[in-house]
Amino acid sequence: MSESLDLNAIREAHARIRDKIHRTPVMTSAWLDAECGGKLYFKCENLQKVGAFKARGATNAVFSLSDSEAVKGVATHSSGNHAAALARAASLRGVPAHIVMPTNAPKSKQAAVRGYGGVIVFCEPTLAAREAACAQVMAETGAVLVHPYDDFRVMAGQGTAALEFLEDVPDLDILLVPVGGGGLLSGSAVASKGVKPGIRVVAAEPAQADDAFRSFKSGQRVTVQANTIADGLRTSIGARNFPIILGQVDDVVTVSEEGIVAAMRRIWSVLKTVIEPSAAVPYAAVLEGKLPVVGKRVGIILTGGNIDLDALPWMKG
Amino acid sequence: MSESLDLNAIREAHARIRDKIHRTPVMTSAWLDAECGGKLYFKCENLQKVGAFKARGATNAVFSLSDSEAVKGVATHSSGNHAAALARAASLRGVPAHIVMPTNAPKSKQAAVRGYGGVIVFCEPTLAAREAACAQVMAETGAVLVHPYDDFRVMAGQGTAALEFLEDVPDLDILLVPVGGGGLLSGSAVASKGVKPGIRVVAAEPAQADDAFRSFKSGQRVTVQANTIADGLRTSIGARNFPIILGQVDDVVTVSEEGIVAAMRRIWSVLKTVIEPSAAVPYAAVLEGKLPVVGKRVGIILTGGNIDLDALPWMKG
Repeated sequence: MSESLDLNAIREAHARIRDKIHRTPVMTSAWLDAECGGKLYFKCENLQKVGAFKARGATNAVFSLSDSEAVKGVATHSSGNHAAALARAASLRGVPAHIVMPTNAPKSKQAAVRGYGGVIVFCEPTLAAREAACAQVMAETGAVLVHPYDDFRVMAGQGTAALEFLEDVPDLDILLVPVGGGGLLSGSAVASKGVKPGIRVVAAEPAQADDAFRSFKSGQRVTVQANTIADGLRTSIGARNFPIILGQVDDVVTVSEEGIVAAMRRIWSVLKTVIEPSAAVPYAAVLEGKLPVVGKRVGIILTGGNIDLDALPWMKG
Repeated sequence: MSESLDLNAIREAHARIRDKIHRTPVMTSAWLDAECGGKLYFKCENLQKVGAFKARGATNAVFSLSDSEAVKGVATHSSGNHAAALARAASLRGVPAHIVMPTNAPKSKQAAVRGYGGVIVFCEPTLAAREAACAQVMAETGAVLVHPYDDFRVMAGQGTAALEFLEDVPDLDILLVPVGGGGLLSGSAVASKGVKPGIRVVAAEPAQADDAFRSFKSGQRVTVQANTIADGLRTSIGARNFPIILGQVDDVVTVSEEGIVAAMRRIWSVLKTVIEPSAAVPYAAVLEGKLPVVGKRVGIILTGGNIDLDALPWMKG
């Protein structure tokens, strides 16, 4: 297993996965530009395979394995987009995927994993139970763990989105990325600083799950009790991700829950594209004035579009 | 004013408007293909300027005018996407747009017209009041009427979507288009049959607004009392549109209201793209098995994406 992350690893990842993922489009809007005074570019990873950038990292991890490693399959614990992404990647390689999920995981997420041929192993909805169930599956099957973010192969895969973004829009001044565990953020920072050293990389995080913000400002990795609608960003920064983020990221900003909902709604309404709450967090930072964008070319990764259409946040209350 | 419609007029329209509109992308989905047994291509006019294909016809009409015609402005009566499209086109040409709207038109539609610099003239919400108000505005200002669909310049503009579609996907077997007044349908039929005579052109219509279906089957233009969620398709077939449809369209099929909602939801969920109910009608015909698609390459125009996010149909009841 590769134990570092550099531009070369990300370029290799791109060569490895590019025929197995979508090259996602970049959208712009004169309305949104006029409102903020900057020029915004949105890379639509909500249109990626499995509806999220997670397809990149999972595919790179699975196709980085040797045949003898791969044959016994892969395993992870996730109730989110990484679960479906890993099931799909394993299916493409023709090996089993064992996905540990809490018993209360949404039916739609379970269906997505099964739809890609993944085998679900249910556990109690606690982190300890998830880790124990995952360890047991690995011991029984010999499957290789593919962690959702704390894994250099996964980070390299996620970094390919920024690589494509800078190919399509080479003159970006700022790259704005949401941060949960830090897989996308660390990959994006290494890719974009590698290609364009002068670019500013800023992470956006819900104020109600601000472990990355606190960790970045203090230099010490901390955890917090997350309570945010942005379900993809409730995880804490990974051990392998944190040093990269500390070294390569220029700033971390936080946004309110109301800002996330307003940003999500605005993007649906103006860009006509369906994004999940986690994907709205960077644009929420623009709406809330958390970073200077006037006169700047700002790249925003719309990370995913998997959402329960029966439970839209603006329908509540 | 041009008094006929042929492929050449549509090609001229495309040359006239192409730098004033978006070349919209075509989306596909392996999931949706597997479900229906055909290969579906979705042309995303919901991503068009003003969020609907109506930008094409309105722009062609406004830029077809001579300077002496254009200087006094344009007028229409519409509470839908044509209103915003005409306001935008007039603004691009630097002439006034007078838009007659019923007093009960949605605030969002009024805001869109004003946002593009259109002047709204309010009237009572009856067809007679709309026509009277429009005639009065034209008499007072000398503005030229640009009808939403019963106008050859508008039809030629709408036909440019099919022209682009067949450039991008030349081997389509079937083109599936929703029908309201028939502007898009007549333009699409002439464009696609002109480019590819063997293509099958099928119109899809809500069963609860089935004037085009009845007119097509009987050969006589009839009107019905429309009662459908697909608000863009409540209008009756235009006098100039009907003979073209009768001569060039291969079939008209109808779909249920439940089918429209299910199709709209499926497209949001799988394609991650926001469409309005009228735009879901062709895919509803596929879902309801109203035409044979197994083994066929089927082009579907997603006509628009302007919808009130506070009132989604599946949230009701």
